[in-house]
Amino acid sequence: MTQNIYDNAAFFAGYSQLERSQKGLAGMAEWPAVKALLPEMKGKSVVDLGCGYGWFCRWALAQGASEILGIDVSEKMLARARVEPGQEGIIYRRDDLETLTLPEAAFDIAYSSLVIHYVEDLARLFAVTYQALRPGGLFLFSTEHPIYMAPRRPGWQVDAEGRKIWPLDAYLREGPRQTDWLAPGVVKQHRLMGTTLNLLIRTGFAIRHVEEWRPSDEQIAGRPEFAEELERPMFLLVAVTKVK
Amino acid sequence: MTQNIYDNAAFFAGYSQLERSQKGLAGMAEWPAVKALLPEMKGKSVVDLGCGYGWFCRWALAQGASEILGIDVSEKMLARARVEPGQEGIIYRRDDLETLTLPEAAFDIAYSSLVIHYVEDLARLFAVTYQALRPGGLFLFSTEHPIYMAPRRPGWQVDAEGRKIWPLDAYLREGPRQTDWLAPGVVKQHRLMGTTLNLLIRTGFAIRHVEEWRPSDEQIAGRPEFAEELERPMFLLVAVTKVK
Repeated sequence: MTQNIYDNAAFFAGYSQLERSQKGLAGMAEWPAVKALLPEMKGKSVVDLGCGYGWFCRWALAQGASEILGIDVSEKMLARARVEPGQEGIIYRRDDLETLTLPEAAFDIAYSSLVIHYVEDLARLFAVTYQALRPGGLFLFSTEHPIYMAPRRPGWQVDAEGRKIWPLDAYLREGPRQTDWLAPGVVKQHRLMGTTLNLLIRTGFAIRHVEEWRPSDEQIAGRPEFAEELERPMFLLVAVTKVK
Repeated sequence: MTQNIYDNAAFFAGYSQLERSQKGLAGMAEWPAVKALLPEMKGKSVVDLGCGYGWFCRWALAQGASEILGIDVSEKMLARARVEPGQEGIIYRRDDLETLTLPEAAFDIAYSSLVIHYVEDLARLFAVTYQALRPGGLFLFSTEHPIYMAPRRPGWQVDAEGRKIWPLDAYLREGPRQTDWLAPGVVKQHRLMGTTLNLLIRTGFAIRHVEEWRPSDEQIAGRPEFAEELERPMFLLVAVTKVK
């Protein structure tokens, strides 16, 4: 079973202070790039795999999505999601993405933001998502980039010339990575980009877009600290469709 | 126009000493992985984009391919290719991959080994390759992995704990990279994996397989120096098809 780190008190306390927790989609640097990959939402049925506080579910509702299912393993996050007003049309459900089942051909869009790097049995989750989509349906997800996840010491170093470098190693060694992000011992699953893409292809998906996210020039101008994000990718965005 | 570094005397002298130049396919560590992505060759028409000494063309001929076109910009390499005996069925042609034209729907397989990272106008080359393939045709290529190409100082460093790291930086800054490999000032084009894949998708190709090459356990057992190849990827293999 996936570690449910979001119900860890220290992790949750730290996570709730992040800009993306306080401001929602507007606090996610990658949101403009994600949004550009989404179709017109009006009338669409949507499942959000790892919905957290429900920011995306509420955005989809505001865009006119007709049915929205938000799934998360964290009681704490779902409790926070459920207290928001005006959510008719959204169902929040507690479930583990390792053992999740979904109805067949029930959704037009499956969405997942920065969650699948926690999932151990990704083949199963992709298969469940595939069968839950209608023909032509879209699966759009973001994940931590494997370059970000791979190193034994995932943090900036300064080289002999005083330049910031990302000390990559163990990139081809797939498997769990343990980091101390917000709380000690957070476990993530390092997979190559190729592994994730080949798994999608074998599941039956057609690859539509693969984006190694980088901040836009406008984002860097507004927040110069974003410039370091040009040195190594933090996020990977992938859009695939269920072939008709 | 792409730099024709292979006709540089110092580069060519160095290149001709590499194991892959001396032993051909058997001297290419990635060949078993490449070969596994190739179909039955018997009766197939094949174009090799950047054929070099012609090792792959001769292998395809031995496998029963019916028509084989080897293209390279280097006079020196083609001269070496042409002197080999028993090549009936292979045509070698000097051409620049930046300006190449190919007949329409003429090939079952397009192959390219470690060449496209030199090409500036990759959109054009992909389009030319697409139209030259028959419906259902395969385009299989290897390229230097962007992790290998990106850094300002692309070489191993040793960190404070005495471990080998790959000093990644500038990964999101696409564009030319100049290195001193075999000769000074070799120019390559750094592109994100996402950029290459999206370009293939926009051209019309369906992505079939994406492999960030790593040596097999057997290869590492036979040559322990290959173990460092698990720290950062050197090659990327991509198989795409022209949808029927």
